[in-house]
Amino acid sequence: MRCSRLLLVTLREDPAEAEIISHKLLLRAGYIRRVSPGIYVYLPLMWRVLQKIMQIVREEMDAAGAQECLLPQLQPASLWQESGRWETYTKGEGIMFTLTDRQQREMGLGPTHEEVITDVARQLIRSYRQLPLNLYQIQTKFRDEIRPRFGLMRGREFIMKDAYSFDADEAGMRQSYEKMYQAYCRILERCGLDYRPVQADSGAIGGSGSQEFMVLAQAGEDEVLYTPDGQYAANVEKAVSLPPEPIPSPFPQAEQKHTPNTPTIESLCSHLNCSPTQVVKNVLYQAILDTGITVLVLASIRGDQDINEVKLTNEITRLVPTLGGQQVLKLVIANQENQNQWAAKPLPWGYIAPDLPDEYIKKDPKIHPHFVRLFDATVAPLRNFVTGANRVDYHWVGANWGQEFPAIETTVDIRKAKAGDRAVHDPQQILQSARGIEVGHIFQLGTKYSAAMGATYTNEHGQEVPLVMGCYGLGVSRLAQAAIEQSHDEHGMIWPPAIAPYLVIISVPNMQDQQQVEVAEMLYQQLQKAGIETLLDDRPERAGVKFKDADLLGIPYRLVPGRSLAENKVEIITRKGHQSQLVPVEEVVAFFEAKRP
Amino acid sequence: MRCSRLLLVTLREDPAEAEIISHKLLLRAGYIRRVSPGIYVYLPLMWRVLQKIMQIVREEMDAAGAQECLLPQLQPASLWQESGRWETYTKGEGIMFTLTDRQQREMGLGPTHEEVITDVARQLIRSYRQLPLNLYQIQTKFRDEIRPRFGLMRGREFIMKDAYSFDADEAGMRQSYEKMYQAYCRILERCGLDYRPVQADSGAIGGSGSQEFMVLAQAGEDEVLYTPDGQYAANVEKAVSLPPEPIPSPFPQAEQKHTPNTPTIESLCSHLNCSPTQVVKNVLYQAILDTGITVLVLASIRGDQDINEVKLTNEITRLVPTLGGQQVLKLVIANQENQNQWAAKPLPWGYIAPDLPDEYIKKDPKIHPHFVRLFDATVAPLRNFVTGANRVDYHWVGANWGQEFPAIETTVDIRKAKAGDRAVHDPQQILQSARGIEVGHIFQLGTKYSAAMGATYTNEHGQEVPLVMGCYGLGVSRLAQAAIEQSHDEHGMIWPPAIAPYLVIISVPNMQDQQQVEVAEMLYQQLQKAGIETLLDDRPERAGVKFKDADLLGIPYRLVPGRSLAENKVEIITRKGHQSQLVPVEEVVAFFEAKRP
Repeated sequence: MRCSRLLLVTLREDPAEAEIISHKLLLRAGYIRRVSPGIYVYLPLMWRVLQKIMQIVREEMDAAGAQECLLPQLQPASLWQESGRWETYTKGEGIMFTLTDRQQREMGLGPTHEEVITDVARQLIRSYRQLPLNLYQIQTKFRDEIRPRFGLMRGREFIMKDAYSFDADEAGMRQSYEKMYQAYCRILERCGLDYRPVQADSGAIGGSGSQEFMVLAQAGEDEVLYTPDGQYAANVEKAVSLPPEPIPSPFPQAEQKHTPNTPTIESLCSHLNCSPTQVVKNVLYQAILDTGITVLVLASIRGDQDINEVKLTNEITRLVPTLGGQQVLKLVIANQENQNQWAAKPLPWGYIAPDLPDEYIKKDPKIHPHFVRLFDATVAPLRNFVTGANRVDYHWVGANWGQEFPAIETTVDIRKAKAGDRAVHDPQQILQSARGIEVGHIFQLGTKYSAAMGATYTNEHGQEVPLVMGCYGLGVSRLAQAAIEQSHDEHGMIWPPAIAPYLVIISVPNMQDQQQVEVAEMLYQQLQKAGIETLLDDRPERAGVKFKDADLLGIPYRLVPGRSLAENKVEIITRKGHQSQLVPVEEVVAFFEAKRP
Repeated sequence: MRCSRLLLVTLREDPAEAEIISHKLLLRAGYIRRVSPGIYVYLPLMWRVLQKIMQIVREEMDAAGAQECLLPQLQPASLWQESGRWETYTKGEGIMFTLTDRQQREMGLGPTHEEVITDVARQLIRSYRQLPLNLYQIQTKFRDEIRPRFGLMRGREFIMKDAYSFDADEAGMRQSYEKMYQAYCRILERCGLDYRPVQADSGAIGGSGSQEFMVLAQAGEDEVLYTPDGQYAANVEKAVSLPPEPIPSPFPQAEQKHTPNTPTIESLCSHLNCSPTQVVKNVLYQAILDTGITVLVLASIRGDQDINEVKLTNEITRLVPTLGGQQVLKLVIANQENQNQWAAKPLPWGYIAPDLPDEYIKKDPKIHPHFVRLFDATVAPLRNFVTGANRVDYHWVGANWGQEFPAIETTVDIRKAKAGDRAVHDPQQILQSARGIEVGHIFQLGTKYSAAMGATYTNEHGQEVPLVMGCYGLGVSRLAQAAIEQSHDEHGMIWPPAIAPYLVIISVPNMQDQQQVEVAEMLYQQLQKAGIETLLDDRPERAGVKFKDADLLGIPYRLVPGRSLAENKVEIITRKGHQSQLVPVEEVVAFFEAKRP
């Protein structure tokens, strides 16, 4: 492609709308343009990158035995009502765009396709002989993000590959899952990315287990915890660890102490001269269920630890059926500001005890009348601990479960693991932290959707049983931007060759120089003939402008037919590191044939 | 691909939801499944067909110098308000799906992309040096059809290729248009279709001229008129012709005659013993404008001719600015049933004259107080004609313009051309009728969008002028189904080889026969290695079932390793025509290499 014909408009200034470097570079280099918040035009250079990624994805999915199809983007609400996810995806924090059509039917714009594919499966899969089956598609998906940002990282319209496997049993599902895991590793390797698979929370998709594929980059929205031995890596949302051992309590005697102005753990420990590992911290949350009922959740955790709200939401979700609902629509910290929504009287904020009486809760049919009390595993082993006394300016010291406070019946894990914690698999291993961009997420769904929607098959024994499913998402447009976030320098992007829009750019320093133009044209023709994707910068611009643009665009190799033509050589500059070498004109094609991804 | 692994579920019965043969076959052969009215899943076989068509489209678009990009599907209402099309596409018969996002912004789901691309162009195109430019995309589009039908023919979610050209002037635009015309011809030829380009009405897209590409098929929704000399072909909506010469009137004297019970042309001519070519027929329409105003349009045409409502709408639209509006949202025939909506008193239905007085119109701020009177060119030359007398049971005979009726100032063409009419370019040529499926539509837009949205560039003289645009649509999913509508028999589909999902199906008659299985496996491997796309029907089914399925699927060649293996030959049956031939096993690969599209 000739740059004079390419829609190539580069910007010298950083666009105001962009926060992270990859987003800035994509805008500056003219790869994308914003049409509406979180909604972008992919211009021809960007589209080439996306097509290369899609081609790699297709090859690896096909090699893994998956078959490509295309599912609708407009999905009837009825399917989502069958699976029980319509409310979760449309109410509260729901991210599905919805509309009413001219026949007054409610529809959603697909953010994901478990419902549609399960509907297809229940129509088409009858017998175990048809299994295993894996269907995938590459498609534009939609999420009505309230704060779209970072360009293609968190857009409202984006390209995804999603695959869905159907197996006869759990063992089959695990095999299908493993195949997809391997395919994802190959895809990310072929794309030239530094990545890490990590254990992950399954969120609104559900199922028994999931892993995310993280492209490592400083600006990543996700924190990953991992051990140096390579045996453990998890999203911080999901990560587990061993907490530090608690320091023995200096309070052998149970008593309520006057502790004025100690509403925080820090001020309390300083006042009492004790370790936060001896404090039971009690944090109150307001959970709003799909039934509209507000539930107050009192979460107790050791004073030196923090609550992981993803884990907490999962624990509350597990209890929701006993409270007459199905889903948690929203979870917020309860505090002095919002207490009038649900409190019968002002709470002793900063001095709450694990046994805060239910009488603090307003009598209201929309408010569950009891506190749901959750105890993190860190509080159970504490002896002679410190905690609130349910009255302002007073704390218990030397308290014990089964004495000053009721014995704990069950504990949960709602603790946030953090860098520096010891690993569970080997306490010698200390968790390290890295930041990543989630580009893939694979799930062992089990029968969550097939059971809810009646997608069954007849097994070898003639019994009708639900299909066992997995699902596998890969963010194609996000991956493209993640590659730039991981690979750039002060001059611009540095595309990995396999997904670069072109492998070579011939930057003609002086379009008035006939020899330069002739050699450039000849090499351009030869390279194209050899199947090497080449840009020819034939614009009537100064050499400096062209070199700057070539760097900004991130084309892996820049070929300059300049002064060295005197010795029948051209200069070839590798984008990454800017090494330059002179190559005889007649060896140029062979040079790039060896570099072809 | 092995049929045992393919999601292959064929139906013996015609599905109730399908009306036309191609739709029935696609459902029966398991190519598509309906998820919601007008919304389909493309299963793996269908997806392969679509990918082949898309590949041909890409190659021809690229060869014509167009560059691929991808534009958003979710489009902000503001862009459509700028172009003035928001109302047309969302009110009345508006076919755009719309939604309100979580920020309370109105958005539409793209049925077409003139607004978005013009927005891109005004941001990126500055100078004549960047021209010409042609950008295209292949994308799922949306139309909220009130009556989706015929499967992929008139769906609510469908795949289109749309291209947009930008030129410095009209001459450039015509060159870009011509390139696209040629590219469309090549695409349809390569797809193996019998097609015809025809002149077309430009509808809601607008512009100065357009052509449709029709795939000829009996069940086509469109009627095409053409001349045997190949010089003229047009959609009946757009077609022009010479009407028959009128027969001279037998009424030399102007007088009102008592003509009881003659509300139709037929009954009138029979009563008066005259030719309908001497009658001025007056048809009343109610047009509702985007301003909400109702306008009554009295259209006069020769009695033997019919009104073309597309042409009529275009004529009214031309007048709309003088009536304070921009668009006609709806056009319906006015009659006895709906007259109470706008009539001050009952009309003399069946006896209306061209000078029907305005006093029949109700005084109402929402109703335009005058009849808009349109005269088709066929009525102007009439002398001593017959027409209504504005009173029940009475007609004028022997009337003349400028005497009994005001002289006609301007005439319009609102006449429906029909088969049997003489051609304008050569009256010796008589128009013939054919039916077609519109798979492509190309438009010379001119500056309609660029002027409305301020998409300008600086020309060679330093002046800022609007870009001159063209746009070019091709229905990819519709084309796939049109191919079947054009090419099938009583056994099933007959895919043109270039777009068949596989070129060959190896149908093993008996999976218990070791020799059959061995030869089939060997040929399957050899053909795949040679890059010939092959299905292997390895299902444990009877030969009859497999042969029926192979026919239904429409795979161009069926290879049967059956009895002829005794002489080291396989049977190859060509799907089209079912000719059978025996080919030595070792010549099979060469045989298909020669057939490769």
